Amino acid sequence: MKNKEFILSCPVEIQKYPSVMMAHGGGGKLMHNLIEKMFMPEFSKIDAGKRHDSAVIDISSNKLAFTTDSYVIHPLFFPGGDIGSLAVHGTVNDLAMSGAVPKYISAGFIIEEGLPMETLWRIVNSMKETAKICGVEIITGDTKVVDKGKGDGIFINTSGIGVIEHNLSINPASIKEGDAIIINGDIGRHGIAIMAVREGLEFETVIESDSAPLNSIVNKLINEGIEIHCMRDLTRGGLSSALAEIAEASNFGININEKDIPVREDVRGACEILGLDPLYVANEGRFVLFVPEKDAAKALQLMQLEEPAVSMIGTVNTNNKGMVTMKSVIEASRIIDMLSGEQLPRIC
Amino acid sequence: MKNKEFILSCPVEIQKYPSVMMAHGGGGKLMHNLIEKMFMPEFSKIDAGKRHDSAVIDISSNKLAFTTDSYVIHPLFFPGGDIGSLAVHGTVNDLAMSGAVPKYISAGFIIEEGLPMETLWRIVNSMKETAKICGVEIITGDTKVVDKGKGDGIFINTSGIGVIEHNLSINPASIKEGDAIIINGDIGRHGIAIMAVREGLEFETVIESDSAPLNSIVNKLINEGIEIHCMRDLTRGGLSSALAEIAEASNFGININEKDIPVREDVRGACEILGLDPLYVANEGRFVLFVPEKDAAKALQLMQLEEPAVSMIGTVNTNNKGMVTMKSVIEASRIIDMLSGEQLPRIC
Repeated sequence: MKNKEFILSCPVEIQKYPSVMMAHGGGGKLMHNLIEKMFMPEFSKIDAGKRHDSAVIDISSNKLAFTTDSYVIHPLFFPGGDIGSLAVHGTVNDLAMSGAVPKYISAGFIIEEGLPMETLWRIVNSMKETAKICGVEIITGDTKVVDKGKGDGIFINTSGIGVIEHNLSINPASIKEGDAIIINGDIGRHGIAIMAVREGLEFETVIESDSAPLNSIVNKLINEGIEIHCMRDLTRGGLSSALAEIAEASNFGININEKDIPVREDVRGACEILGLDPLYVANEGRFVLFVPEKDAAKALQLMQLEEPAVSMIGTVNTNNKGMVTMKSVIEASRIIDMLSGEQLPRIC
Repeated sequence: MKNKEFILSCPVEIQKYPSVMMAHGGGGKLMHNLIEKMFMPEFSKIDAGKRHDSAVIDISSNKLAFTTDSYVIHPLFFPGGDIGSLAVHGTVNDLAMSGAVPKYISAGFIIEEGLPMETLWRIVNSMKETAKICGVEIITGDTKVVDKGKGDGIFINTSGIGVIEHNLSINPASIKEGDAIIINGDIGRHGIAIMAVREGLEFETVIESDSAPLNSIVNKLINEGIEIHCMRDLTRGGLSSALAEIAEASNFGININEKDIPVREDVRGACEILGLDPLYVANEGRFVLFVPEKDAAKALQLMQLEEPAVSMIGTVNTNNKGMVTMKSVIEASRIIDMLSGEQLPRIC
């Protein structure tokens, strides 16, 4: 969005203040204006006119998924997304990982005094667009403003409600020996995209974040009758930490093959420059799927329709219980553990 | 909680780190430890062992309330509460204001690097205790850590789900001419308690915040058949801003009488010293109730069982539509508007 678009599209009552002030979070007129003129028209129409402390919703299912995530990513805008789109994708994906159909999202803003109003407007619009694409409605929200130097531009919390209409029990406890482990695409792009901006690195091509919603493909897998045992999206800590957590929680062993893990050449090169292992780099549109062997081929086929780099990366076994073992490209075997320390701070 | 209690009660794996580090939010081992050893044992047992991206819940009603609030209060501890108890009360109360029975809460932490671990432990324990008292379960959460100087100790987002089992339509659009407006106690204590700590003011007695859950009294009113038209808790912006918003949203006039608005003498005195109008000072355990005249006496009676300072402060009319008018103690009439500017930053 260019400055001209901001001037043309943003209500004058909002533009009057070039940056966010403490009073925009004070519960008075300015906050009221921000809600009425900026948030309400951009977000859902549910309960509009009622303007109440909580949104009231009719729900068709008696089984729900509920999740929350705060987003503190730095910088706020990056190739392939921004904090607003990320905040919607992240929460949609957490719901999808339970096999839920994401329905409703909340938006809680913690804004640092002095944030340019145009920045807020761009983020709010990005959230609106992303929610529309994901098929979710932003129905309730909150705005707080903290003094300059006590925040960092903007932090966003999104919580989400999804409905569960299947009878699968999708979680680490459902994993079985022999399960196939499938990944829905190449790894490491989100982390590298952020690091490249932060470190001012320039590659031949711009590496864009993989940030994307996963609810559509999950829905398809469920509707096609794939017997999903577990799913996990690969965010902070990357593929390794997700698998290590699942191995520990399920008390099964996990074997993966390095050669089957898709990593784009530019991402691999950037990882080498930055001294990072792509297995630990954050993603925002990637997940691992655990399904019985019988369903693996069909799942791969369905997932390939969305993304060609889908790959079966390993299997579940009863050796080395609670641990992840990887066969490297040179056929050596090594234990894959959770991330130690901090690799990429504020990646989401 | 004293330091000794922290040493005795907090798991050693957590105590090993005297303060929160960036890696505690990195998605790796330290974050895993924090979740497993600090949050999971203190919060709900639902989905324990499943440890998944979202919590799965069975819901008995098809009508839900959903709300979110971030808490950025400064200081973190104050007479009558702390950011943890406030974060639970606030969201429980937002749900209660829809007449919902609060059930499930999420907890999203944004922690500034360097926060003493003991502080986090105290806050987590306070949330646990408060949730228990309120009858809600904290079932899903998230932890982010931001670099020192990019936050302010800790910010907490809580989102909440409540079930609606009544057939009332509780919101400004349901207000009718002649409705009685009742307040459930004296106003201004929360704001003054915070300001006193912040400004280092000492009064004869310590003024404690009124922070408290409202779900129990709301539940009682509904169960006793009170025809509730609207409710609103009086947080940022105080009584004035809440009433002004309701008047605007309902397009009715609201008349209140200053002499009927309960303000404790010590609070009134503190307001005078600080140059504040108690009508605009934040509360965290107060709400206004709109009921038809026929139900006013019964509602007052029920509410008095919990708090003696309950008072009927005014009525709804069709004069001065969309506005709040107050008759002062000297019988002068004045318009009550929403808070302009910022009175008490970071009060919740």
